[in-house]
Amino acid sequence: MTRIAPSPSPSIARLLADFDARRPAALARAVSIVENQRDGFDALLASLHPRIGRARRIGITGPPGAGKSTLTTQLTLAYREAGLTVGIVAVDPTSPFTGGALLGDRIRMESVALDPGVFIRSLATRGSLGGLSSSTRVVADVLDAFGFDRILLETVGVGQSELDIARSAESTLVVLVPESGDSIQALKAGLMEIGDLFAVNKADRPGADRVRNDIELMLGMRAGRGLQDAPAHHGVDLGRIGNPARAAREAARGEQEERWVPPVLRTVAAKGEGIAELVDALDRHFRYLGTSGELTRRRRARWREQIIEVAEQRLRRRVWQDAGVQAFIDSVLPAVEDGSRTPFGIADELLRRAADILTRTAT
Amino acid sequence: MTRIAPSPSPSIARLLADFDARRPAALARAVSIVENQRDGFDALLASLHPRIGRARRIGITGPPGAGKSTLTTQLTLAYREAGLTVGIVAVDPTSPFTGGALLGDRIRMESVALDPGVFIRSLATRGSLGGLSSSTRVVADVLDAFGFDRILLETVGVGQSELDIARSAESTLVVLVPESGDSIQALKAGLMEIGDLFAVNKADRPGADRVRNDIELMLGMRAGRGLQDAPAHHGVDLGRIGNPARAAREAARGEQEERWVPPVLRTVAAKGEGIAELVDALDRHFRYLGTSGELTRRRRARWREQIIEVAEQRLRRRVWQDAGVQAFIDSVLPAVEDGSRTPFGIADELLRRAADILTRTAT
Repeated sequence: MTRIAPSPSPSIARLLADFDARRPAALARAVSIVENQRDGFDALLASLHPRIGRARRIGITGPPGAGKSTLTTQLTLAYREAGLTVGIVAVDPTSPFTGGALLGDRIRMESVALDPGVFIRSLATRGSLGGLSSSTRVVADVLDAFGFDRILLETVGVGQSELDIARSAESTLVVLVPESGDSIQALKAGLMEIGDLFAVNKADRPGADRVRNDIELMLGMRAGRGLQDAPAHHGVDLGRIGNPARAAREAARGEQEERWVPPVLRTVAAKGEGIAELVDALDRHFRYLGTSGELTRRRRARWREQIIEVAEQRLRRRVWQDAGVQAFIDSVLPAVEDGSRTPFGIADELLRRAADILTRTAT
Repeated sequence: MTRIAPSPSPSIARLLADFDARRPAALARAVSIVENQRDGFDALLASLHPRIGRARRIGITGPPGAGKSTLTTQLTLAYREAGLTVGIVAVDPTSPFTGGALLGDRIRMESVALDPGVFIRSLATRGSLGGLSSSTRVVADVLDAFGFDRILLETVGVGQSELDIARSAESTLVVLVPESGDSIQALKAGLMEIGDLFAVNKADRPGADRVRNDIELMLGMRAGRGLQDAPAHHGVDLGRIGNPARAAREAARGEQEERWVPPVLRTVAAKGEGIAELVDALDRHFRYLGTSGELTRRRRARWREQIIEVAEQRLRRRVWQDAGVQAFIDSVLPAVEDGSRTPFGIADELLRRAADILTRTAT
């Protein structure tokens, strides 16, 4: 029988023992090892693998300044009051221009930072954001395996990071503010697809109701309903969400799946308002995920991505870091520079070498 | 002899003929084909390959609101007055939260948009920003091959995008504003490494001189000089820039390479102030790149990246889109879900299949 997983080294085995004993230091070390892909990270993850699946993963995204961190803190406090443990992964694109704001947010989180039932980790971008979404997923896996009940994945909603992170989450909350301004614009760009729930935060400011209405209209239009029909039920609803054409076909076939209508909530996180309703909505979404089979689908999609990612990472390491491949590339660079060879012709030669390397190093 | 590059299809051959005749429609089509990796894009790029290398590529980055687009426009006007042609690639992370500002910037650019000697393309993020840096590079390649004298690569400086794009550029200009606020903070996070030139824009606002001083101090400190020594020469200077330890070793060996001291300029782009000085500084940097050998180094680094990228893309296409691989992954998902198999054990099996596929499909 093929060896299923790499055997842990003695030091990883010791770490696992401490991890099993729920030692906080072991948790921190395990997170650090998998986040940075240090020696033994794959053996560690493989050993933790059977324990993954109990936690609920909630993504929280939105523009800078929406008050996501404050909302995350309030949600955490609410969960703690209910006796649940919470892991928070804050994805922090390393940029000087958002540095100031994020630092402020992290200070606010100290009201939960001293609670042993809460674990907070900030992940900084190193290299591409693709790498970050992968780190987020495996860090969440470690927290899941350790036994946290809720895992909050908080991202700054710029670029594609929110889409990547949303794929790691089972419920994605999009946080907007009255000053989101061009809120219709905001809703076009992919947030509609990933938002399972919407919250207009700082809802005590002027414009909050307008933003809520805008969002509900957009959701209603995407559902194929007329402008005059506001969504009646926030929560599970039979309706035509997401793909009106497909829904019409399904209706014609007599199939009518349960569909989720994203609720649009009002919160004033700084005052703790609207938090109970948010917790409730998240619970309802999780029940919907279970009864509709969507939870299984999303988790399988996550595993599929991770499988491909792990394989790609290994392949890249074996091939691009091969000394022969490096030497070959060095040797052709002058020809590429002077125009006599192109990257495309060279690519095929590289793939031949890749085939050889992979065949040679197959385990 | 191995076929060096894929032969263009008839339609690509026709496109190339129109491209050679410098037809604007052919340029736009070529850009679109390579940006979106449409059929024939690799044959097209391979055919254009020998013509690449004449243009000067200038990266322009900085926080949202720094006035980059205005500065880019002014730089473009200055180059046009000098009889040079300009291609502009504006990298636009697709995010609802910056959508409004970027739209405003694009409107300003219309003062150059009608000029046949200027070509403007906005690239939106699709998927990871890694893909975007790759698109930027190949679009710049097409503009280069078409004959543009200057190619301006403008990015919103958030996340790692500015670092990725800077690798496509030969000179990178970092644009800050007096309200950059925590400017020392701003300078920590990698901008110091990529900035060949700095410009404090909107320099008629209060705080401009302080920001300039802060930047110069930071540059001086990185150069290993004391706080009391302000950089004396903005431009080519013998000094200890970048890596004081290495510079000390080189000095010990009797080597003292020309080093570049990034100038810190004042501009008020909206009024066209400081633009002539900027053009001059960019020209000086380009001369430095030539005499120091740095131009060759940077271009080779760019080709190396592109070679690996092309090979990786091909590999990914051949392996992950293989029907057998997809079916295999589908078949193991339930076991991964229930914990009896891990992504790590599966990865090795996938690599064996990858080796087979690559061997089979080798050209």
